[in-house]
Amino acid sequence: MQIPIVENVLKLNDEVAQLNREQFDAASVWVVDLIGGPGCGKTTLLEATLQALKGEFAVGVLVGDLTTSRDADRLARGTDQVAQINTGQACHLDANQVRQAMRYVDLQSLDVLVIENVGNLICPVGFDLGQHAKVGMFSVAEGADKAAKHPRLVQMADALVLNKIDMLGAQPFDRNGFEADVFRLHPEVVIADVAALRGQIEPWLNWLRQQVHAHHPPIPTGSSIVTPHA
Amino acid sequence: MQIPIVENVLKLNDEVAQLNREQFDAASVWVVDLIGGPGCGKTTLLEATLQALKGEFAVGVLVGDLTTSRDADRLARGTDQVAQINTGQACHLDANQVRQAMRYVDLQSLDVLVIENVGNLICPVGFDLGQHAKVGMFSVAEGADKAAKHPRLVQMADALVLNKIDMLGAQPFDRNGFEADVFRLHPEVVIADVAALRGQIEPWLNWLRQQVHAHHPPIPTGSSIVTPHA
Repeated sequence: MQIPIVENVLKLNDEVAQLNREQFDAASVWVVDLIGGPGCGKTTLLEATLQALKGEFAVGVLVGDLTTSRDADRLARGTDQVAQINTGQACHLDANQVRQAMRYVDLQSLDVLVIENVGNLICPVGFDLGQHAKVGMFSVAEGADKAAKHPRLVQMADALVLNKIDMLGAQPFDRNGFEADVFRLHPEVVIADVAALRGQIEPWLNWLRQQVHAHHPPIPTGSSIVTPHA
Repeated sequence: MQIPIVENVLKLNDEVAQLNREQFDAASVWVVDLIGGPGCGKTTLLEATLQALKGEFAVGVLVGDLTTSRDADRLARGTDQVAQINTGQACHLDANQVRQAMRYVDLQSLDVLVIENVGNLICPVGFDLGQHAKVGMFSVAEGADKAAKHPRLVQMADALVLNKIDMLGAQPFDRNGFEADVFRLHPEVVIADVAALRGQIEPWLNWLRQQVHAHHPPIPTGSSIVTPHA
């Protein structure tokens, strides 16, 4: 008798993530995984994003938290395509949780889907959810050492958002040191400065617009033919 | 042939934590595990604590980060009893990491040992390190919903520190809502308001002093006799 063994939980996750990505591509929706610490302003950024992009892109959100639906309640004021994932005690989203939650949004109607990960700079980094881009988010209030302390996030991120830049000056924050750490770890990465609470998020919106326009889904809408793609 | 199986990694962790606790008690040192998100101000609080308690208590620190020795470098200005634990990709400290690190401080010389956990509100909560108390730390800059979103931390904490209270007024923060969430989850818990960057940390120092004075180690210094204790 041969007992099947799942050798690697991450491998299984990657297979489900690939299924998600194929479904996202079939629906021509660009998907970003937003990763940041608790209180860095992820939900506030998304509130401002939903408002700014109204009439330009149809944006949906899947939002992860251990518990409560507070974030989804806030975001539901800006889109009816939102689902809350409660992870219980789990410190990150995995591809299967996203797979369950994406049933609750109408992918065909969306241009952009943001997955707001659980507030955590560490655990979400290694998990593919099927996204097209990963964005790491820091805030001035957290101090300038957070990039150096979270090198994997910086290295894996397609862009970084630095929030609460309106606190520069009022808070000690070594901007030069922050940038030196970031570019040492990832020379080509974009840093988008925002003040989400004030609605000052243009650098982030511009990066997002570029990504959506550059995204050419490899699978035609409605097709079930799966071809390998990066 | 019988293959031994470790049934529960947390059970093993608890056994090592108990060894740590016995060693702390034998040295008459009171140990606190400080848990908070990235950038809530843990290291800044400890810098101010070391300065304030100079001549009153001998304080050592074990500090956890994925990488870098930046926190230990900062804290070494206030005590020569400090060790940095780099966890690599691990999102929390475990009892064995503390066991390795505590060799680098002279427990006999200390009254207080603070274990500054990895910046993370989720994963560190369930791990016993051998501490006598767990403290959860939030900051005004993170927003008022963090207690509700991290119920296990609030429930397990012997005290909570709310940092950056000098930002109240400048930042939106529903103080009443924060307190309602905290006391619903843990009616008896102490909330110590601090502004660590300004050195305004008296409520935290007073709670800490009470704990140290109330702590009666059950094992006389130097004894190797181990008796069960809470």
